[in-house]
Amino acid sequence: MVPIRIGFVSRNDEESIQLAGSLIDHFRSRAEIFVEPELAEHLGWKGTPVEEMDVDFIVSIGGDGTILRTIHKMEDPRPILGINMGTVGFLVDVEPKDAVRTIEHLLLGFEVDERTRIETLLRGERLPPATNEVALITSSPAKMLDFEIKVNGSPLERLRADGMIFATSTGSTAYAMSAGGPIVDPHLDAIVLVPVAPFKLSARPWVIRGDSMIEVDLKLPGKEALVVVDGQTMATVTHGDEIIMRKAERPARFVKASRDGFYEKVKAKLV
Amino acid sequence: MVPIRIGFVSRNDEESIQLAGSLIDHFRSRAEIFVEPELAEHLGWKGTPVEEMDVDFIVSIGGDGTILRTIHKMEDPRPILGINMGTVGFLVDVEPKDAVRTIEHLLLGFEVDERTRIETLLRGERLPPATNEVALITSSPAKMLDFEIKVNGSPLERLRADGMIFATSTGSTAYAMSAGGPIVDPHLDAIVLVPVAPFKLSARPWVIRGDSMIEVDLKLPGKEALVVVDGQTMATVTHGDEIIMRKAERPARFVKASRDGFYEKVKAKLV
Amino acid sequence: MVPIRIGFVSRNDEESIQLAGSLIDHFRSRAEIFVEPELAEHLGWKGTPVEEMDVDFIVSIGGDGTILRTIHKMEDPRPILGINMGTVGFLVDVEPKDAVRTIEHLLLGFEVDERTRIETLLRGERLPPATNEVALITSSPAKMLDFEIKVNGSPLERLRADGMIFATSTGSTAYAMSAGGPIVDPHLDAIVLVPVAPFKLSARPWVIRGDSMIEVDLKLPGKEALVVVDGQTMATVTHGDEIIMRKAERPARFVKASRDGFYEKVKAKLV
Amino acid sequence: MVPIRIGFVSRNDEESIQLAGSLIDHFRSRAEIFVEPELAEHLGWKGTPVEEMDVDFIVSIGGDGTILRTIHKMEDPRPILGINMGTVGFLVDVEPKDAVRTIEHLLLGFEVDERTRIETLLRGERLPPATNEVALITSSPAKMLDFEIKVNGSPLERLRADGMIFATSTGSTAYAMSAGGPIVDPHLDAIVLVPVAPFKLSARPWVIRGDSMIEVDLKLPGKEALVVVDGQTMATVTHGDEIIMRKAERPARFVKASRDGFYEKVKAKLV
Repeated sequence: MVPIRIGFVSRNDEESIQLAGSLIDHFRSRAEIFVEPELAEHLGWKGTPVEEMDVDFIVSIGGDGTILRTIHKMEDPRPILGINMGTVGFLVDVEPKDAVRTIEHLLLGFEVDERTRIETLLRGERLPPATNEVALITSSPAKMLDFEIKVNGSPLERLRADGMIFATSTGSTAYAMSAGGPIVDPHLDAIVLVPVAPFKLSARPWVIRGDSMIEVDLKLPGKEALVVVDGQTMATVTHGDEIIMRKAERPARFVKASRDGFYEKVKAKLV
Repeated sequence: MVPIRIGFVSRNDEESIQLAGSLIDHFRSRAEIFVEPELAEHLGWKGTPVEEMDVDFIVSIGGDGTILRTIHKMEDPRPILGINMGTVGFLVDVEPKDAVRTIEHLLLGFEVDERTRIETLLRGERLPPATNEVALITSSPAKMLDFEIKVNGSPLERLRADGMIFATSTGSTAYAMSAGGPIVDPHLDAIVLVPVAPFKLSARPWVIRGDSMIEVDLKLPGKEALVVVDGQTMATVTHGDEIIMRKAERPARFVKASRDGFYEKVKAKLV
Repeated sequence: MVPIRIGFVSRNDEESIQLAGSLIDHFRSRAEIFVEPELAEHLGWKGTPVEEMDVDFIVSIGGDGTILRTIHKMEDPRPILGINMGTVGFLVDVEPKDAVRTIEHLLLGFEVDERTRIETLLRGERLPPATNEVALITSSPAKMLDFEIKVNGSPLERLRADGMIFATSTGSTAYAMSAGGPIVDPHLDAIVLVPVAPFKLSARPWVIRGDSMIEVDLKLPGKEALVVVDGQTMATVTHGDEIIMRKAERPARFVKASRDGFYEKVKAKLV
Repeated sequence: MVPIRIGFVSRNDEESIQLAGSLIDHFRSRAEIFVEPELAEHLGWKGTPVEEMDVDFIVSIGGDGTILRTIHKMEDPRPILGINMGTVGFLVDVEPKDAVRTIEHLLLGFEVDERTRIETLLRGERLPPATNEVALITSSPAKMLDFEIKVNGSPLERLRADGMIFATSTGSTAYAMSAGGPIVDPHLDAIVLVPVAPFKLSARPWVIRGDSMIEVDLKLPGKEALVVVDGQTMATVTHGDEIIMRKAERPARFVKASRDGFYEKVKAKLV
């Protein structure tokens, strides 16, 4: 019988590293263990880059940021189990005290929850697909951008605003929510467009089909904007740059572990 | 060759009736014509109830209300072409001056745009499916309801509010928009839930999958609410009544006639 | 020395009436007591109509509704102390267990908090001034009104909507909040105008000076609307009726009793 | 008789400079003219720094930004007349074609409109008072700040957000509007607090008295934020810095020139 293969990544703080160490010790006799290089160094293991982890699932110890960074490294993301180290997170799913018991269960089998990601093409180059959102934001705080958005070739909106968020359903409870967007069932195949501080009384959030192609045009010569993927990766864009967004070929994957429904999480975390 | 069959309905005003008359005169030699009884009486035709119209498409002359009323009468709605008689409408599609030319084109063939409808079961009885929205509204203006909403058996929200709107994507630009909901691509298979005047800072619009089952529970014994379908049909509900909503088996159908995209309509009609 | 004079009103439920009885028993030797007729009947006292109560302050036992109804009866409102019987309220201030101790303190002297009220003139007749808000609401649920609002003679907004709320600062945390209005410091002399379900993307809440004169014009002949003052008093208005609102000559008055600041209440009660 | 004294400032573009030149030529025989140094250089005049202009009023040719920059330079701002060079502005008041006629009228006398400004004390140092708003904004786009706001010593809100806008009534139609704030009568003495992209469903705009004292505490050690006054002046703040805002001693002043009411401007400029 082939043993189950588990990857480990962690946030770079003492508590998370320590929990990683004790989980690895607990499961190393029953599973083949792979450890992300920075964590491996702390624990005296051999490191395996996330992008090379050919595992059944990855245990991510930390917050949503740890998970998002981990997914960014994978072309075809392995299923993630998020252990929550004290942050408000929608992607982390299990409390530290329940980690051992949860992983025990996963050894016997588990279901996977697939979530659409949004891919950005910038001047023809691909950015890491977004699990939560792609944000187009002014690079000069408090100075507005001026941009136009087209969906499948049709103009949707011309706007002066601090920015615009293009979120997955999964990301509707993250930055898109802050900017005033609706809460979207993470299993609806949709993209949510939410302006950030639009200088227009009639601006509203939009919800479009997940298979839409989005183009963004910056209107002001000389003005720069940032494209921020999941609050992690940044790129600078300027007038004339081609910016295209569309559904990524491969989804993010999460291990189904907790019983908590989506709606309970919204009430518990966002109010 | 079987001739094309066209139904006619109209709003009960002079201008609409006159346009109906002239369109019927113009096309009676090339199509089999069926006329809704009230309009038929004005024009001296034989009347055919909408629910018995076995036609290729129905020409509706008036506003969105005329179309919604017409669709309500059909179990399996025939495709509608809406001629716009001076109202702000998202369902009406063609201006009176373009009516003849548009119908000429339809005689040669046309595409149909299908739109999901929401069906309500009230104490086990079906209301006419909603093309725009089902609104649950207090029957005592300025007195709040208290209700709970479950989606697929899971509690989504408990709220005190004037009401709650359960809109199709098509209806996202109607009452749901007024209550603060997002604008949803009419081809996204989704249901939008928007509270009306919720007594809670943290209430937000929700967007859920079109195949969800929604249950609503009124919490206050003795208090009545109204269920209003597309602003047309009303029913009274009270504490203890079973209220269930789900996707209707058969969609509304619209003839694809105009070139105007959805986003242009939003900008032109709602600002 | 003239003894202090205290009025008592209560909600019509057993618990409230019982608390009223025991407070009256406790203080009758040290204060001159006046009891509102309905409560008096329950307790075997002589009744004094609220409008004739010439007292230092009135103890209101119940919820915000009890207080609002009491203030409506007074041309020149006496200071109110609200004892909170289990409702979410911004006007009730003291928990039942603290009632005796609080009133003991008031016997030694107290400060009064004055709050602006809004008076409505309907076809020249005065409605009871609003402590929270005047709401203009459609009398046919889910059917919009069409109206124009002028402030000091200048047009502010023409709108199709379910209604419009004209709130005092005090009322900004009541119905106006539900409809999406800002939270206003109760000591700012302002009127907040918040549309209810406006059919217009660009509608926004307005905050205007407390000394403004507001006129409302219903635009549709034959259509009726309701004017609801503090959720209590209702009147029907129709096209052509003169509707004028302005600051009432005499404010509502509250006894300053609790230490809880306004902002703590907002967080505790509305989230 | 003492001749009237007029100052001139302009945006640094050809059209504005040319209009300034022709206005100066037109009025130099009837008024004492003072010209801001940069403009003076273009026109071959002697320059007078704005801060030293002891004039009856200043003609500002350009947009709102030109006016805001000009006011920032004055401890006790002289009345401004704004000539609108093609921008969306609430402070500019007169179209170029009406400039001569308007100034002719001002020679005979005029009224002044005073507007409250907000002064910021940063680590004890005063920033130029804000005519529109003080914005506290994250210096890392798409990375939230964590801060607490106190009003007159009482905690109002603890928030994680991209930023927070503290606007005058005048500024309620500028950045504060974009972030979702209410529209406030410019003659109401109030401060509007509007969060920018708050990570909290229950966040709302606040309207407080103009004479309030506001303190802001950044909660995250090591994280920086920007304080931006009227989109012009920037300062960097960090955890532990004292940030205090309050009404400035001296208001901004505008010459009353146009007939257009405030509400007409809102409709014309912001939809």
